Amino acid sequence: MPESEKNNTVDDAQLQFTPSGQLKHLLTIRGLAREQIVELLDRSQEFVIAEGEAVVRSTALRGRTVANLFFEPSTRTRASFDLSAKRLGADVLNLDVNTSSRKKGESILDMIYTLQAMQVDVFVVRDAEAGVPAHIARHVSNFVSVLNAGESHVSHPTQALLDLLTIRQRKGKIENLHVAIVGDIAHSRVARSVSEALATMGVGSLRLVSPKALAPDIHAFPEDAIVTEDLDEGIAGADVVMALRIQRERIGSLDGVPGVDEYFSAYGVSHKRMQLAAPDAIVMHPGPMNRGIEIESSLADSPCSVIRDQVRNGVAVRMAVLSTVVKSLEDLHK
Amino acid sequence: MPESEKNNTVDDAQLQFTPSGQLKHLLTIRGLAREQIVELLDRSQEFVIAEGEAVVRSTALRGRTVANLFFEPSTRTRASFDLSAKRLGADVLNLDVNTSSRKKGESILDMIYTLQAMQVDVFVVRDAEAGVPAHIARHVSNFVSVLNAGESHVSHPTQALLDLLTIRQRKGKIENLHVAIVGDIAHSRVARSVSEALATMGVGSLRLVSPKALAPDIHAFPEDAIVTEDLDEGIAGADVVMALRIQRERIGSLDGVPGVDEYFSAYGVSHKRMQLAAPDAIVMHPGPMNRGIEIESSLADSPCSVIRDQVRNGVAVRMAVLSTVVKSLEDLHK
Amino acid sequence: MPESEKNNTVDDAQLQFTPSGQLKHLLTIRGLAREQIVELLDRSQEFVIAEGEAVVRSTALRGRTVANLFFEPSTRTRASFDLSAKRLGADVLNLDVNTSSRKKGESILDMIYTLQAMQVDVFVVRDAEAGVPAHIARHVSNFVSVLNAGESHVSHPTQALLDLLTIRQRKGKIENLHVAIVGDIAHSRVARSVSEALATMGVGSLRLVSPKALAPDIHAFPEDAIVTEDLDEGIAGADVVMALRIQRERIGSLDGVPGVDEYFSAYGVSHKRMQLAAPDAIVMHPGPMNRGIEIESSLADSPCSVIRDQVRNGVAVRMAVLSTVVKSLEDLHK
Repeated sequence: MPESEKNNTVDDAQLQFTPSGQLKHLLTIRGLAREQIVELLDRSQEFVIAEGEAVVRSTALRGRTVANLFFEPSTRTRASFDLSAKRLGADVLNLDVNTSSRKKGESILDMIYTLQAMQVDVFVVRDAEAGVPAHIARHVSNFVSVLNAGESHVSHPTQALLDLLTIRQRKGKIENLHVAIVGDIAHSRVARSVSEALATMGVGSLRLVSPKALAPDIHAFPEDAIVTEDLDEGIAGADVVMALRIQRERIGSLDGVPGVDEYFSAYGVSHKRMQLAAPDAIVMHPGPMNRGIEIESSLADSPCSVIRDQVRNGVAVRMAVLSTVVKSLEDLHK
Repeated sequence: MPESEKNNTVDDAQLQFTPSGQLKHLLTIRGLAREQIVELLDRSQEFVIAEGEAVVRSTALRGRTVANLFFEPSTRTRASFDLSAKRLGADVLNLDVNTSSRKKGESILDMIYTLQAMQVDVFVVRDAEAGVPAHIARHVSNFVSVLNAGESHVSHPTQALLDLLTIRQRKGKIENLHVAIVGDIAHSRVARSVSEALATMGVGSLRLVSPKALAPDIHAFPEDAIVTEDLDEGIAGADVVMALRIQRERIGSLDGVPGVDEYFSAYGVSHKRMQLAAPDAIVMHPGPMNRGIEIESSLADSPCSVIRDQVRNGVAVRMAVLSTVVKSLEDLHK
Repeated sequence: MPESEKNNTVDDAQLQFTPSGQLKHLLTIRGLAREQIVELLDRSQEFVIAEGEAVVRSTALRGRTVANLFFEPSTRTRASFDLSAKRLGADVLNLDVNTSSRKKGESILDMIYTLQAMQVDVFVVRDAEAGVPAHIARHVSNFVSVLNAGESHVSHPTQALLDLLTIRQRKGKIENLHVAIVGDIAHSRVARSVSEALATMGVGSLRLVSPKALAPDIHAFPEDAIVTEDLDEGIAGADVVMALRIQRERIGSLDGVPGVDEYFSAYGVSHKRMQLAAPDAIVMHPGPMNRGIEIESSLADSPCSVIRDQVRNGVAVRMAVLSTVVKSLEDLHK
């Protein structure tokens, strides 16, 4: 995409809203006001059901088409968007991008224009390159919505919302909580998006814990975030501890972290480590987990773990976001 | 999976039922009583339609989600489950396991827990490793059902049921029939499951015909099965002759069966060979066929062949099984 | 397939109709009368909607199953058929042929018989080999329809119909228009099918423009088509200019066209070139485009371009064809 488009993140945030301020695209948490986040969480909560209950179904997207464009492999996020759209009554188009026209040299935009001409209403986009979802949103017709389903190491807004919803369910609030995010912050779109969301919601403190080589680009995180290499310091008194996935192949190249055992010992979230946190602290992980590397396996299955709640809430959040943006499109064209 | 879980097939059979004896998972034919099989066949028959008739549709699975988890490639069984679930009104999630999180090192169980948290109600599982469907069934929530869609060389229960249904349609009964199964018995999950089912239904005789190198592990088959290397002996007077698929690459390594021609000559089910069977004998094959290897091509298309009926009945059986297990889940949680 | 079947294209044309003359398969434009084409276009037009309007939905295919069998990779045509079938209420089976039984050596016909036994009503077939769709149509049951979704370099009938519809929308008619088709005619199923359709509709002149090495087999095109290597000559006064996709790797091997720049200069459809066409001429392309090779990029996005209309009309045409053939099946079996 053009160089000129690469760094206009302020514009990305504005791009998300209709002239009357309704959410039309979801590209980034940036630019979402506290009340807008609360409204999305409230709407999401309506789609949450207890295990074994019949799923909430709606016809809010009947006659609408949702296209899942995953240019990076994904099982869970793709399945989550797929089921969310189907449970709202949409037709879903899952595009296998490996066997697609992109091979034949067609540009992303020409692919988008083509699908748009087939009356796709919502594009759900995951891409390894930063800027792609906003690039698409800038070029689609005024009748079309774009949702970011994971963008390089930059942004993953529905993940941030499902994390907030999960915290709120257990803690009753997000304000003033102490939250520690632990692991490979440098490469984590989850860490960036959830940090922005937590800051907007008035979190008490945000601690970013990682080995030096995986430390955050501080310009991409809230100003008052606490950056530390010391897990004991970061986890002390925390209400929420979020472990991040680390790619095994990265571990070998970390200064002072020569192997998996050393990584777990220094940065693994474990029962023992959780004793430093607040007494009723919860443990989160965006999945898929490397058990025994970034998180102790038995901790992931213990009562303080909300990892499966996160997954369940993911469907609810995506249903809420899909119905919100489609409503905005409809209002825009009344 | 843990070694301790690998051989508890008795438990697998029990695992399938709710405390009140309703079928909740379908993992193996073992443990199914004659009346339970008859009930499933009766229910399946209601879903069978004549060619060209509109398919039977139902809303028994409306609001339910069926996930097809095929860790081995499959066209026909996957399509059969897919269409069965859709015709019952379910949402279907087809997971392409090659591009899935399994690559990233996530365990099967974590994948299952994740999908379960997205309110998947039924997992349809095919796996090359023995024990995987039962392993999953042992760990899912009490609100979730697991169906075995083909497990290593061990079990393929819906195939057994569709074979029984097909025989019953042509012969009016299964009791006292003489059935010959011919070919690569050693590697066949079909042979194992259908043999168990035939024994439960009181078949007259069961003959297992194969070259020595592909002979059955007799402990996995009914005690009174007749094992022979002589096709003429095995087929004599048979009411039902079932040819099994053989992988071409196996043929070259068989003692006394150096090539395809020799295999067909010794173990191919042909018009000529069928003259030894009962006058109105039927020919079956689970597909996909190697025409001219395990079965004479023109025989497969002749009036005594019920091979396409087997496929049609496969959809009916899977609709019956899906609606049965979902009904059991509902009764369990009333 | 048998040699004897390879060249009976007259039969293919007849094969498409029921005894009472209704369209049952769509294999080729050949054999379609002018009134039949007009009727299909009229029906298609009913499914065309303005951008942002809710899609037209119908229950014409409720309870029907459409199987997309794409033996060549495709995004746009497959997505178009998929959405068309879903918007008519059908169940859709998308078969990933790479992971299919075809690997295991099953013949196409056995795969078809299997899917037919699962009550698939319509097969949508794309294949790199000529004759495959007709071969299938000759063997399916009398209750089943076959649609050609792209056949080698021979035939692509729904593309031809969507091109006619697009022309008719802009020009109000097709009769007496001057149409130039430019580029790799030799390898183009689009060029063949649309030329047949234009001839049937009474086009004013048809000009086929290509470098010598990519010139048409004139026996496959209407007798009075004008064949030329000179784009200026071919485009002069044309009402419609259709650029064809060229595979980049072909360019290097063309006499007198050593590179991409030379190709664009000699055969690229550009703003400058369009000045030779009729004043209100339109530009078409079947996609996906190589911008800057066979078509000037800015021309493709200019007001005279109807390229996105073609895509939109593709869905409408496929909905019309699907509902037409299913209606024919129903009438046949009343």
